[in-house]
Amino acid sequence: MPDPIASTPRPPYVAVVFTSVRTPGDHGYAAMSVAMDQLAAQQPGFLGVESVREPVGRGPGIVGITVSYWATREDAAAWKQVAAHLVAQRRGREAWYADYRVRVAVVERDYGPGEDHDR
Amino acid sequence: MPDPIASTPRPPYVAVVFTSVRTPGDHGYAAMSVAMDQLAAQQPGFLGVESVREPVGRGPGIVGITVSYWATREDAAAWKQVAAHLVAQRRGREAWYADYRVRVAVVERDYGPGEDHDR
Repeated sequence: MPDPIASTPRPPYVAVVFTSVRTPGDHGYAAMSVAMDQLAAQQPGFLGVESVREPVGRGPGIVGITVSYWATREDAAAWKQVAAHLVAQRRGREAWYADYRVRVAVVERDYGPGEDHDR
Repeated sequence: MPDPIASTPRPPYVAVVFTSVRTPGDHGYAAMSVAMDQLAAQQPGFLGVESVREPVGRGPGIVGITVSYWATREDAAAWKQVAAHLVAQRRGREAWYADYRVRVAVVERDYGPGEDHDR
């Protein structure tokens, strides 16, 4: 399986943070999700993706955070168009998500273990 | 319980994306995590936090993404100092994390359902 932590280059690069609350049930979500991941990896400027999901409290929903990394703002924007088309072709977003928020951000600094100073 | 999606103001603001792989076992992590969340919420410039965790594949580790939001770069940097002190006082980071990456980013655009145009 892939490393859950993406291997990104030195900043700057672009992060798209997608935080969502899923509705109960699959509704074709799993198949769409696999297709989206495969398609994203083929897009120009794709640098990597990190994705984590867990149940919301004791309820039936699922909260997820997916962060995709892109070389430029333009690459991220192009992927938004491709992804929107794919979703539209399959099912309405409303079948999957009770709520979501997308945040497009420019990564200025990053560090890991033993790298408390900026790269 | 709090909304899993943070209510952030209009951009720009700062996102700190912390992606981690935890070692098996608690080692005092749960207590530290609660204390950190409470302390973060009291810091100047704190806007909100989103956090999701799940098991890594079939292994014993846990992958997590926590995104904290801050009014300014300086607020995020100040929290880093406070958090580092707290961790140092309790246990070495090495007891909890097999690997991690911190990315400090400036959110330029965001949108949710029915807001496909930028705010």
